[in-house]
Amino acid sequence: MTAQTARTTRRRGGTVSKAAAEGSGREAVLKSALEAFFAHGFHDTSMRKIADGAGTAISHAYYYFPSKVDILRTLMIGVTTELIHVLEAARDAAGDDPVERLAAMVRNHVRLHTERQAESFVANTELRSLSGEERQEAVALRDHVATLFKDTVDDGLRQGCFHTDSRDEAVRAIITMCTAVAGWYRSDGPRTPEAIADSYAVLALRMLGCQDGVSGRQ
Amino acid sequence: MTAQTARTTRRRGGTVSKAAAEGSGREAVLKSALEAFFAHGFHDTSMRKIADGAGTAISHAYYYFPSKVDILRTLMIGVTTELIHVLEAARDAAGDDPVERLAAMVRNHVRLHTERQAESFVANTELRSLSGEERQEAVALRDHVATLFKDTVDDGLRQGCFHTDSRDEAVRAIITMCTAVAGWYRSDGPRTPEAIADSYAVLALRMLGCQDGVSGRQ
Repeated sequence: MTAQTARTTRRRGGTVSKAAAEGSGREAVLKSALEAFFAHGFHDTSMRKIADGAGTAISHAYYYFPSKVDILRTLMIGVTTELIHVLEAARDAAGDDPVERLAAMVRNHVRLHTERQAESFVANTELRSLSGEERQEAVALRDHVATLFKDTVDDGLRQGCFHTDSRDEAVRAIITMCTAVAGWYRSDGPRTPEAIADSYAVLALRMLGCQDGVSGRQ
Repeated sequence: MTAQTARTTRRRGGTVSKAAAEGSGREAVLKSALEAFFAHGFHDTSMRKIADGAGTAISHAYYYFPSKVDILRTLMIGVTTELIHVLEAARDAAGDDPVERLAAMVRNHVRLHTERQAESFVANTELRSLSGEERQEAVALRDHVATLFKDTVDDGLRQGCFHTDSRDEAVRAIITMCTAVAGWYRSDGPRTPEAIADSYAVLALRMLGCQDGVSGRQ
């Protein structure tokens, strides 16, 4: 629902509950903030700009979120929590083979970073704009993502399908290349998200000593 | 030279030329700005904070640099130009073999990002704080770095020592993992810059279908 239709709905009254109208107003503020953070960065975005973009008064924006930092926190926690769910679902659906599991996780990581590009980019670049508990919360979720990859890589190392002396570096490199997609992906670019996801799965497996799905030391 | 010794030198007078004293004052402003940008980010750093850190008056800071953006530009252009020189020297010293060349470039890229961590981190994270010509200049230097890697990878593909259908993705992934080192490296961490550099060279070659220095399809 756009800010315009949200306002229309509220003016008409009666057809939607107060909670639904508040929900859509809150969503409009989040959407406006996301667009501004993505285009100009957190620091160059004011609450006034966010309120204007949402077609609402600045007092309404503060009604939904006590601060600009609270909006950033909501966006970052939201997309990283979704990423964790997507990775866990992809891993579980891929069966027991660590090679298949890792490939599925990488593909889905890349796909989410093209589908939810703005949220992902903001989450990847604005961590330093959070502090205290909000920052700890975001870091904990990010660590959770790393743990999902580490656990799958460790399974593969134990089962002899992955080979590396640099597990930490490989995991970091895999996550880094996948998150960076949100920074350069263009929907009108030469390759589809699917093709990029497939390429990245191959690159990740190669880093772990799997030459295009075949273990390097068989 | 620290800001303190710079001031002392200037007070003593006569022992250093005006140009040298100005050079050290300029360096103190750059050093203070770098520390603040690295710790708090460009937007949360004021010219007053930079001047205070350099032990000088804010009017002196503006004497050396017309704006905070000009300091950022100077730092970013400086470290990226140095990176280009380091990569070209490493490539040329490695001989004609694209495998050796790429490994040397990756190792030196990583090493510079540990040795000049603050400048590298600022250059990698504050591009959006530049605009207009300054931004174009920084982007052109970054593109030059990518071209150095692409050219070496293309040599390897032509000579049959690299194998990939995703040259652009592989180059991007290699550069991304190397630049990310500036974000997480700690001098008191478990691995030396040398060990990290070696690991990353192996990861990069693997991404290009070289299983630990041995071409995957021979």
